[in-house]
Amino acid sequence: MKGTNETIKTQLAHRTIREFTDQKILPEVFEELMEAARRTATSTGMQASSIIRVTDPKIKSEIARICNQEYVARAPELLIFIADQYRNNQIAREKNCFVENARDMDRFFAAFTDACIMAQNVVIAAESMGLGTVYLGSILNDSEKICELLKLPKLTFPVVGLGLGYPNQNPQLKPRMEMRLRVFENTYTTFEKYLDEIKEYDEEMRTYYDLREPGRTVDSFSNQVVSRLKQHNVKRQEILNVIRKQGFDLMIR
Amino acid sequence: MKGTNETIKTQLAHRTIREFTDQKILPEVFEELMEAARRTATSTGMQASSIIRVTDPKIKSEIARICNQEYVARAPELLIFIADQYRNNQIAREKNCFVENARDMDRFFAAFTDACIMAQNVVIAAESMGLGTVYLGSILNDSEKICELLKLPKLTFPVVGLGLGYPNQNPQLKPRMEMRLRVFENTYTTFEKYLDEIKEYDEEMRTYYDLREPGRTVDSFSNQVVSRLKQHNVKRQEILNVIRKQGFDLMIR
Repeated sequence: MKGTNETIKTQLAHRTIREFTDQKILPEVFEELMEAARRTATSTGMQASSIIRVTDPKIKSEIARICNQEYVARAPELLIFIADQYRNNQIAREKNCFVENARDMDRFFAAFTDACIMAQNVVIAAESMGLGTVYLGSILNDSEKICELLKLPKLTFPVVGLGLGYPNQNPQLKPRMEMRLRVFENTYTTFEKYLDEIKEYDEEMRTYYDLREPGRTVDSFSNQVVSRLKQHNVKRQEILNVIRKQGFDLMIR
Repeated sequence: MKGTNETIKTQLAHRTIREFTDQKILPEVFEELMEAARRTATSTGMQASSIIRVTDPKIKSEIARICNQEYVARAPELLIFIADQYRNNQIAREKNCFVENARDMDRFFAAFTDACIMAQNVVIAAESMGLGTVYLGSILNDSEKICELLKLPKLTFPVVGLGLGYPNQNPQLKPRMEMRLRVFENTYTTFEKYLDEIKEYDEEMRTYYDLREPGRTVDSFSNQVVSRLKQHNVKRQEILNVIRKQGFDLMIR
């Protein structure tokens, strides 16, 4: 059974779209996305996430530079999802409740989770209306600079970016690892030799790249893992320092 | 415009479901959920998330105890979403790539994000097939104990739980804050006095609770924020210590 209904068909057809047509996203379509965002589940009802809609071409270019992905500047819509404990902390203060708890890492992670699942709800709503999306984890290449650019107050933090628009490309579905390597019953299952387990998948990925872009260097999944893991970016690695700078208390013993 | 298509209608109808009928989730339905999980976007294609499907009633009860929510033990399906850098690190090691980068907080957050958006994809797929869901952020009441119970190896971490089943309740849609307080253009907008801005919403929440459970103490959103922020749980607050214990390098300067 694959794709029982329209929603699941949309989900199973997910591909990252990086190139968009000139077609604008109409205000009523955008509103629908924000309604889906609004109705997303949220930890203990606290709604600890916000969205910055980036429309200023200068800020867009700056973000594209941080992402090191020039196509970001061309995305018809660019949203940055924010973990947000600022708003609720202000509400509490206005009610004369001055506690340090809003600063703790528990609240940080609750807000971070709220922001992520809201982003995914927007992605699905968008794809269901024929839009394409690209997640931009690359905003964290310089999270401090993102905080400055978007004037994020204390107790907020940028989680992930999202580019949206009408697709101007039709990429193949990217092969994915078998779920038997990712879904376990009751306790985590480790495997003796992962390279044996992913042998077929490695091969599938080679073929995928071959078809997508004949000139491109063919790469297996395991080779990609190695090249990804070799990359390091000190600013990204030291993300907790920026989180602390944004006012959160890391509470390290 | 509200609910342009079936997918968005599903999204706009989201409510948390805590009580389920005895109807089992059929294997083909479960498989469909896992297919949706598999196709979820993932940071740089790394698929750094896993799922533990908890079927053992003893483990379920233990988790319900940690969550401090007895209904968790009764959920027909209980999934724990895991941030997972273990698998890819093993793959790299088998290819003689021994780097420390898999341990850094950049990879932790990439995996955490992968797990969150995968969870939301499962939620939508489930709801589109008539299932109800309840997110369980409460597994983090004792993340260390969850790691033990599920035998999570180094470089993995439990992100969020999810209970699923066919709804045995039909709660009202919970009122949500207006998006003008949560969506901003280009830079974050702060408000002079949030209590004024959310006045109507506060009232709406009071009415909502009134209708849902006439005997229950009526509570505005702002009162809920205060009571939530007053709560503190040292184990939750000190989450970074458990993350470090799971092998991640916090890289605090």
